[in-house]
Amino acid sequence: MKSRSVPVTAFQPGEGFLPDCQRLVKEQVIPYQYEILNDRLEGVEKSHALENFRIAAKKTAGEPVTEEFYGMVFQDSDVAKWLEAAAYSLTVQPDPELEKEIDGVVELLASAQQEDGYLNSYFTVKEPERRWTNLQEAHELYCAGHLMEAACAYYEATGKDGFLKVMEKNADCIYEQFMNHCSKGYSGHPEVELALMRLYRASGNSKYKELAQHFVDVRGEAPNYFMEEKAKRGWNVWGPTGNDAEDTDYTQSTLPVRQQKDAVGHAVRAVYLYTAMADLANETGDAGLKEACETLWKSITHRRMYVTGGIGSTVIGEAFTVDYDLPNATVYAETCASIGLMFFARRMLELEAKGEYADVMERALYNTVLAGMQLDGKRFFYVNPLEVVPGISGKAATQRHDLPQRPQWYACACCPPNVARVLSSIGSYAYSEGEEALFLHLYLGGTVKSAKGYSLSCETGYPHCGAVRYVFHGEQEAVLALRIPGWSRNTALTVNGEAVDLAAAVRDGYAMLNRQFHEGDVIELTLDMTPRKVFASSKIPADTGCAAVQRGPLVYCTEGVDNGGDILSLSLNRDGALREEDFDAGLLGGVVPVLADGWRTQQTEDLYTASRPGREKTEIRMVPYYTWGNRGLNQMRVWLPEA
Amino acid sequence: MKSRSVPVTAFQPGEGFLPDCQRLVKEQVIPYQYEILNDRLEGVEKSHALENFRIAAKKTAGEPVTEEFYGMVFQDSDVAKWLEAAAYSLTVQPDPELEKEIDGVVELLASAQQEDGYLNSYFTVKEPERRWTNLQEAHELYCAGHLMEAACAYYEATGKDGFLKVMEKNADCIYEQFMNHCSKGYSGHPEVELALMRLYRASGNSKYKELAQHFVDVRGEAPNYFMEEKAKRGWNVWGPTGNDAEDTDYTQSTLPVRQQKDAVGHAVRAVYLYTAMADLANETGDAGLKEACETLWKSITHRRMYVTGGIGSTVIGEAFTVDYDLPNATVYAETCASIGLMFFARRMLELEAKGEYADVMERALYNTVLAGMQLDGKRFFYVNPLEVVPGISGKAATQRHDLPQRPQWYACACCPPNVARVLSSIGSYAYSEGEEALFLHLYLGGTVKSAKGYSLSCETGYPHCGAVRYVFHGEQEAVLALRIPGWSRNTALTVNGEAVDLAAAVRDGYAMLNRQFHEGDVIELTLDMTPRKVFASSKIPADTGCAAVQRGPLVYCTEGVDNGGDILSLSLNRDGALREEDFDAGLLGGVVPVLADGWRTQQTEDLYTASRPGREKTEIRMVPYYTWGNRGLNQMRVWLPEA
Repeated sequence: MKSRSVPVTAFQPGEGFLPDCQRLVKEQVIPYQYEILNDRLEGVEKSHALENFRIAAKKTAGEPVTEEFYGMVFQDSDVAKWLEAAAYSLTVQPDPELEKEIDGVVELLASAQQEDGYLNSYFTVKEPERRWTNLQEAHELYCAGHLMEAACAYYEATGKDGFLKVMEKNADCIYEQFMNHCSKGYSGHPEVELALMRLYRASGNSKYKELAQHFVDVRGEAPNYFMEEKAKRGWNVWGPTGNDAEDTDYTQSTLPVRQQKDAVGHAVRAVYLYTAMADLANETGDAGLKEACETLWKSITHRRMYVTGGIGSTVIGEAFTVDYDLPNATVYAETCASIGLMFFARRMLELEAKGEYADVMERALYNTVLAGMQLDGKRFFYVNPLEVVPGISGKAATQRHDLPQRPQWYACACCPPNVARVLSSIGSYAYSEGEEALFLHLYLGGTVKSAKGYSLSCETGYPHCGAVRYVFHGEQEAVLALRIPGWSRNTALTVNGEAVDLAAAVRDGYAMLNRQFHEGDVIELTLDMTPRKVFASSKIPADTGCAAVQRGPLVYCTEGVDNGGDILSLSLNRDGALREEDFDAGLLGGVVPVLADGWRTQQTEDLYTASRPGREKTEIRMVPYYTWGNRGLNQMRVWLPEA
Repeated sequence: MKSRSVPVTAFQPGEGFLPDCQRLVKEQVIPYQYEILNDRLEGVEKSHALENFRIAAKKTAGEPVTEEFYGMVFQDSDVAKWLEAAAYSLTVQPDPELEKEIDGVVELLASAQQEDGYLNSYFTVKEPERRWTNLQEAHELYCAGHLMEAACAYYEATGKDGFLKVMEKNADCIYEQFMNHCSKGYSGHPEVELALMRLYRASGNSKYKELAQHFVDVRGEAPNYFMEEKAKRGWNVWGPTGNDAEDTDYTQSTLPVRQQKDAVGHAVRAVYLYTAMADLANETGDAGLKEACETLWKSITHRRMYVTGGIGSTVIGEAFTVDYDLPNATVYAETCASIGLMFFARRMLELEAKGEYADVMERALYNTVLAGMQLDGKRFFYVNPLEVVPGISGKAATQRHDLPQRPQWYACACCPPNVARVLSSIGSYAYSEGEEALFLHLYLGGTVKSAKGYSLSCETGYPHCGAVRYVFHGEQEAVLALRIPGWSRNTALTVNGEAVDLAAAVRDGYAMLNRQFHEGDVIELTLDMTPRKVFASSKIPADTGCAAVQRGPLVYCTEGVDNGGDILSLSLNRDGALREEDFDAGLLGGVVPVLADGWRTQQTEDLYTASRPGREKTEIRMVPYYTWGNRGLNQMRVWLPEA
């Protein structure tokens, strides 16, 4: 069954965990990031992102310019992602001041846009003669894509179309270049494809879909565009040792997309591309493209994904490696990659409502994506390791990127605003609607409006509590499709207190409630929150002999601060139980700690010894992975040996 | 108690494992490598190493030269190491033809040597104006050192001093440059220091000791020489992205050597440096230097060494990382680094006879060093992983260097001839002699002659069997110091059948037999070869929950070929036994396989599952680590989870 994410305005947050995250983003993250984009915050990496546009605007106006562009070639995208998140936030709660700030930035963008619609501060300020000559490295289409997304978001959130018009004009400029002037090539970093699909839906103009389809179709055709481009372009963004055009896997351009079988290369690029492919397959009914998406989905989620929903095993190219290579300490698992996995999952869900897609989307969200942000919304992880040992993590040559604590802001600041835009629009991930049904993918407090007129309010303590209570508002026949997570072993569903036979009602992971609903009908879903041990396939060398703990959608971790500092000497008791403590509202923003029967092995003097070290029983205390690193420098592990 | 390694001529190999290795080197490795050095072998990386000298000789003779230098900047050292190994081999068995080949190469070297004694094919052919301007990268002193070692070896083996004179002249040239002309600097890759100490002893000329001391003393003084050199030299060997002079750890030049506390940087460089430091401390009685050696020894062997005696945890800089960072799959553990660790151990043993040093020397030898060579002597590992999974090893971006099978020869061919020179001179590692005693460090069949006139013959099936039988030849009072390995739990020692009270006789790991010996006296040492499980310190994240198996000095490993292919699903039974099979002469050149009670976990369909996979009891078959990878492509692990 097909569906489309509900518009961001269709969801109004209520009480609970994800709504609190939305409010945190609105109240803390967005103002904080706005200060950073304006270079008004001391002690963090300089952004200069808005200043770059101000310089570009001066140039566009023909004023003399002496200031220089500063930052990454894709610095514009930080502004775009902030705009997108800020736009969504207006749906969380109206905020005239924020809207004014957004309007100010949009005005700045419009003034930096050139006559022909071109909009990019790097090229306008620094390389005006080199437009479209380095698609491999220069993120020109990538930045455009992010701005298009932001424009769509602002239009969806407010109905105001000024920004949308700016970005339509920009898209027209790109269309002109690649479709009318037949410029060859496509973006080294996919993003514009998925953005054009959104722009197509927001504007109703099908040329943007046509352009997206073009970029998807020509990708990976022989001879390889990036190698041809590199041979003739004569300039590099990253210097002579930068991105290698020959590494076509890095840019997912080794083969045409319909022939790709394995998720390879830069993980963020990969999932952004697959997101566009899935969206396009949905819009066009292209069976070959759908099949490629399914194949690539399996490649990731059946063979190349961490239990936390992290993807990209290596810092080398921030990339996928090979099947089952999932090291816990040297991992990359970029926050943005898991965000991209949520995008991909959402589009796959739209294409076909299957619980498997929602399970992965939820896994990525509640574990890696949320871990990317400190609980106060002020510090961020780019890389999300599953094992941290201060003294090794962040220090050893192979783990320099695996920081044991969140930094404030990065020179390459892609992740923080990406977290913000996902959380602030979480309603559109939680619900999708099609002709047949309204799909309830994620559980969160608040009210969703169906396009069919009725609405549904939800109250839940999820993800810490498994009771989800919906109240129907309206009087009509409707089909509600409630996701039943794959991890919930004992699930109960009632309508007005009457049990639903799940065995009969569940189809592809969704319980289908098809009936005449009445105002005030109560639907109660009870998920099995019993903490459980999770075991990895023995094909993953890094996890053999180990178990992880999950409760509900949350992967748990063991931190030194709860366990006497040293957790390397801890192992789970194979025959031992897991127990949950009461919800502790004062701990880590509110969590349910889990206790596990375990062993503590005595430390030995020797590096290696033939005398088996003694061990004693102990209780291991665990907290949700997304909360790790919020209580100072300490050891952390997701997988513990089990003995 | 101090001692000095016995001369290579003092040992005559008999029967058994190490003597067989010596003969393999003589009969297979040395002729094979000679063919390679002469570019007469098809299908292996081109060497050109002798051809480089031929070109240099033409230049020295003033003939017109059109040919170009080919290979690494340190290509000369391949010739040197081959010469050294070949020289030692002459003591294994006289071989006029090999001696003629050596003499031919020596003659070539002499003809390539310049008037002033300078000898280096790279600089002579390619960069004649740039002598001594890039000590950081260009391996000029390194190559000289290796040639000095070869000259000493040939002199020790044959008494012929032609080669020695060539290298004395070369050392004089270096002395002139650095002592008389006061050229600043020292070698980026230590080697010349330890070589000068050998040259000093072979020649009796103390200026070489003085030069060695100079190089050791000025290392790491501020301001850093390599940074100064890089700022002014204006050329690079490895291109702009090559070795970074700022990474002073890489070249062990962050601090003066007496202030260094941690083993850092390129592992081979580190242990070559420490070897010279220990040798010098022994010669000069420099207490500060001795203390630095002891501190660095502990840094390596107590915190930064694999159970296989491998060192250097990362491919990035082929280097040490930080304490307890010892990953098994992404490891570097270069063969040459463990050879260097043997060098260091030997010098520490000379400085002070302590069983700990010999235990580490033996650990490195029987595990990593021997694993570096295929059983037939024709293929070599540069990197020695402790976990190999075909499909991941050698393929994943972080494991490209961890090959699952030995290649024939490398463009950078440092390891193969290094293995050859150690094995062919193994008698000098096995025995050392001082005023107080003859020390028996390693057990191997053959006869050693004491400087005091007597000799001792040995018969043993070691390392596969624990019985070692010595027969005394001569009539005199003597002190024999027999190493009692730290790993042997129940050791028996008899003289003419009469038990020695080891509790009373053992001092620092050596059983001291001090008595009047008679012709034919029989000393029998029986070591405890019971296979045992070994446990790593829980500070090593990579080994938690795991055990390895050792028998005698041999670390064992589990290979797919013995265990149904898939070994990732195997774990050791915590309460299970180890059993040894009979010695199997037909297997892997003769080994004692070990069987362990274990479990095989069922493979699961899912990447992660909350359903505990079933397991059944199984018997795990293990073979010595040094034999791994000799039976085709398959999985291998040293550490197995224990449950």
